[in-house]
Amino acid sequence: MNTYKAPLKDMKFVLFDLLKAERTYRELDLAAADRELSDAVLEEAAKFAETVLAPINADGDREGCRFDRDTGAVATPPGFREAYAQFVEGGWSGLTAPEAFGGQGLPESLACVFKEMIDAANLSWGNYPLLSHGATEALKHHGEDWQREAFLKPIVAGRWTGTMCLTEPHCGSDLGLLKTRAVPEADGSYAVTGTKIFITGGEHDLTDNIVHLVLARLPDAPAGVKGISLFIVPKLKTARDGSTGGPNAVRCGSIEHKMGIHGSATCVMNFDGAQGYLIGQPNRGLNAMFTMMNSARVAVGLQGLGLMDRATQNALAYARERLQMRAAAGAKFPDKPADPIIVHPDVRRMLLTCKALTEGARCLAYQATVEIDKAERAASPEARAEAELFLGFLTPIVKGALTEWANECAYHALQCFGGHGYVREWGMEQLARDARITTIYEGTTGIQALDLLGRKTLHTQGAGLKRFLGLIEALVAAEPDGEFSARLKDTAALWAAVTREIGGAAAADPDAVGAASVDYLFLSAYACLAYWWAESARVAQASGDAALAKAKLETARFYFDRILPRAAQHAAAIRGGSASLMALDAELF
Amino acid sequence: MNTYKAPLKDMKFVLFDLLKAERTYRELDLAAADRELSDAVLEEAAKFAETVLAPINADGDREGCRFDRDTGAVATPPGFREAYAQFVEGGWSGLTAPEAFGGQGLPESLACVFKEMIDAANLSWGNYPLLSHGATEALKHHGEDWQREAFLKPIVAGRWTGTMCLTEPHCGSDLGLLKTRAVPEADGSYAVTGTKIFITGGEHDLTDNIVHLVLARLPDAPAGVKGISLFIVPKLKTARDGSTGGPNAVRCGSIEHKMGIHGSATCVMNFDGAQGYLIGQPNRGLNAMFTMMNSARVAVGLQGLGLMDRATQNALAYARERLQMRAAAGAKFPDKPADPIIVHPDVRRMLLTCKALTEGARCLAYQATVEIDKAERAASPEARAEAELFLGFLTPIVKGALTEWANECAYHALQCFGGHGYVREWGMEQLARDARITTIYEGTTGIQALDLLGRKTLHTQGAGLKRFLGLIEALVAAEPDGEFSARLKDTAALWAAVTREIGGAAAADPDAVGAASVDYLFLSAYACLAYWWAESARVAQASGDAALAKAKLETARFYFDRILPRAAQHAAAIRGGSASLMALDAELF
Repeated sequence: MNTYKAPLKDMKFVLFDLLKAERTYRELDLAAADRELSDAVLEEAAKFAETVLAPINADGDREGCRFDRDTGAVATPPGFREAYAQFVEGGWSGLTAPEAFGGQGLPESLACVFKEMIDAANLSWGNYPLLSHGATEALKHHGEDWQREAFLKPIVAGRWTGTMCLTEPHCGSDLGLLKTRAVPEADGSYAVTGTKIFITGGEHDLTDNIVHLVLARLPDAPAGVKGISLFIVPKLKTARDGSTGGPNAVRCGSIEHKMGIHGSATCVMNFDGAQGYLIGQPNRGLNAMFTMMNSARVAVGLQGLGLMDRATQNALAYARERLQMRAAAGAKFPDKPADPIIVHPDVRRMLLTCKALTEGARCLAYQATVEIDKAERAASPEARAEAELFLGFLTPIVKGALTEWANECAYHALQCFGGHGYVREWGMEQLARDARITTIYEGTTGIQALDLLGRKTLHTQGAGLKRFLGLIEALVAAEPDGEFSARLKDTAALWAAVTREIGGAAAADPDAVGAASVDYLFLSAYACLAYWWAESARVAQASGDAALAKAKLETARFYFDRILPRAAQHAAAIRGGSASLMALDAELF
Repeated sequence: MNTYKAPLKDMKFVLFDLLKAERTYRELDLAAADRELSDAVLEEAAKFAETVLAPINADGDREGCRFDRDTGAVATPPGFREAYAQFVEGGWSGLTAPEAFGGQGLPESLACVFKEMIDAANLSWGNYPLLSHGATEALKHHGEDWQREAFLKPIVAGRWTGTMCLTEPHCGSDLGLLKTRAVPEADGSYAVTGTKIFITGGEHDLTDNIVHLVLARLPDAPAGVKGISLFIVPKLKTARDGSTGGPNAVRCGSIEHKMGIHGSATCVMNFDGAQGYLIGQPNRGLNAMFTMMNSARVAVGLQGLGLMDRATQNALAYARERLQMRAAAGAKFPDKPADPIIVHPDVRRMLLTCKALTEGARCLAYQATVEIDKAERAASPEARAEAELFLGFLTPIVKGALTEWANECAYHALQCFGGHGYVREWGMEQLARDARITTIYEGTTGIQALDLLGRKTLHTQGAGLKRFLGLIEALVAAEPDGEFSARLKDTAALWAAVTREIGGAAAADPDAVGAASVDYLFLSAYACLAYWWAESARVAQASGDAALAKAKLETARFYFDRILPRAAQHAAAIRGGSASLMALDAELF
């Protein structure tokens, strides 16, 4: 009963009208991705998401992945293999990869719209290509030529998939503790030994070979994060010419029974002297891994966005149909036994919260993906570095806030269904369960928040923040009497002031950053959305589309009236400081 | 891996030190429930919850209830029957029921502490006795003598259980739409026909007979809520002398597959000319049902509280053990490979949020349960009416806020576990799934909020609100220079001002109440907790228990610094008004 229809109109509005992506594509030598081609790609992508992926989502949840203890094999749910075959056949696996490796060289920002659709349609399924994309990035940036030939090409072609093997039982956020070992062999390869957990797509039946990218320590490595190297460990032994042999000494030991994403195999992977190849420099593995992780973090933010949209559109459809009670001002549909619940203010509050967060989040997420394209392809190194910096700033906001909002939207949307939201039949509870992982994997919200406030803001003297504040200033300057300008200006001032205050406090208090971090992430996210809602309303007014203009304006008003007060609340919490947070001894809790 | 230990120390602190329940019991002629007996009851109750109910909670989730399509029978999960037998044997089923019906006549407020334990230990199991309690209330207040003899006594003895049959496929919150019919028979009974859904405990294997309390329409009943009557419909045909015969024409048609509470049977119940007895006055069934619902709403608030506590204590235990990274100010445990995560400010933020909400919620919930005792037993009708009024005000706050906070605490607590929180093994994800129903059943948060703001506040000229504001004033007057007094006073002033503003707006705007309601519920709840934290800190300082004094004081500080700013955010959202909420046409969403 839970359906998905890609919101193509809003997607195009954000990418092309708000973000002017077509102009960017021309500047980045991506002119092939003109509006016509882009539209065609998105139409096809929507068809794939709606008709291939969405229909197998509920069954995927119910059936889940199956693990064969005897062989270590994992069977994905019914239809997943077939959908993957169609994905490969349609050329989707290589959408953004360089043409030199068999890809189509299209913009990341365009492919990310497709990614939103995939995640909305079927989050579990979407994890398999997602991890391949991460592996592609690592190989592209850090692989030797033969490694790209041997491993990247089959991944781009969709014949193989990739994984990221970081976590171990005793180390999640703290990778410095990891114990997996890699011992050099005579032939230049390494024997990798250790246990990795929570490995998404570590084993499955979609492809024959799986390329694991594994963090491990060389024998002489220093302790901590500076002694970690990255290795390619294929499921099937793979020679330097790319030819595959028998099974490598890596095996799935079990799969997790999880709250959600049942169709996504989360594996314990046991490496027992498995053949591996060093990728990048020794002891610099974390750097190489961060290449994958930044890309993966934006991708998980897009998962949040996809879930937000799906939750919202299903709640909206239900609220238009479900008849309960009369509108407070009198019956709106006197011929029906009751009015549809969308007439009730509190139902509208939930729906508009979902809508305002979702469409606002789309602006922010797509803004980040356009920076990915610039960071990759801008003509000058300076322009690339600047885009990289801004992307670095936006990434933890996108990952952190959009995944938290996915949980919030799934929560409101389920609530709109009342008891029907809690039963499996309507699919809302699956969205809520699936969404819950997104604030955890690829770095928890807490980790994103530390990254945003520490590395990406205080350590850069607020470079990314200033860039965003500049966007706000420009909009306010262009519309000094605009309906939202005063509140937008106040919000920017609050954001800047709180940042300065934390910077000041951090000089004396080592806990100041950690105490402020998650509230700071939310404050930043609500400030970003305030900009994007004011800008959306402005651009929509000029679009000549009266329905769009009205919808964006009224939703912007709702956002400023009823959501933006959260920014002040987070600022107040931050200003509460670290004292009451740190005072209580652990044993007194 | 998910355990439960009843927080007896805090429970007793709240009930006896803060709320002075022992004095109330003496005043209410409940002197038998002195401190010694109360302590003994709570110790035994804790043992039952910890050793009988908690151990079967995870299995109950995994196995769930089983429905036999051929017979319509429902089997509860392993251990549920045995636990229920122990519950009955221990005399727990009649704890608060009048001695005339075989009960022990103990205070509701004491039994509700046990209820918190039951819900924390095993929410699914707890639903079976909970519904019996609701039926007990309805029979006690509205049943004829023979009905009490025939139906109440076996329920009090635990030999039978009860249900509440309200919801139908097309009507949840809007009971005016219900269609189930009751036709008078020659012998004074009624033939009840219709379909009820979402019936908790509608069928099970814990007892032979089940007493359904069913809302239905008499043939000549007016339309809407004023044409609804309440009927007793037993599973086994039951004569007026209480003797049971063969099966009645009521049968479970299926059970729901739900997000959580898998051990609690949620049934579709088909009544096909089933033998029923009218209870209370014709067409006044909703009134009688409200007797059950108010009691059930506080009870569901206690479910929220129980889940909050269990989530918090498990996250705390994990945060003390799990080693990841070093404290920002330098290693706290240099001999270990890393520090326990409880040293990190953001983990503390989540834990303290859980702790502050849970212990604050306990004060508010127990405050309501003491009012239940007063409403039932106070000497004068005026005192009973006053307690009833205050209870009516507190009930939607307790039900609405504590269930929302249960979801919030389960969310934070799961997050503290990182990826381990998302897998079944640790039990955190079950808490999150179980908690999700509590904001829905017995009236959604939206329904509670309308009840609070409309019926219980504006329609009473703020009688209950004034009573709570009086508590705050007294505390501020007693401690004019108290650390929290200024902020407490401001909060009370904000609460009062916003109430007046909504009242003013409502005169002209029919949507003003609905637009403000849920934010008003939260504003009220955070204001109540501000009072209770200031009061907890004050009373704990005088307790002579240094650890308690420190823990309550620091947690109060945390509450005022970092949680209370939410009150202002909800006030700001309310002040945003209804305009932007109501402006968008349904088709433009």
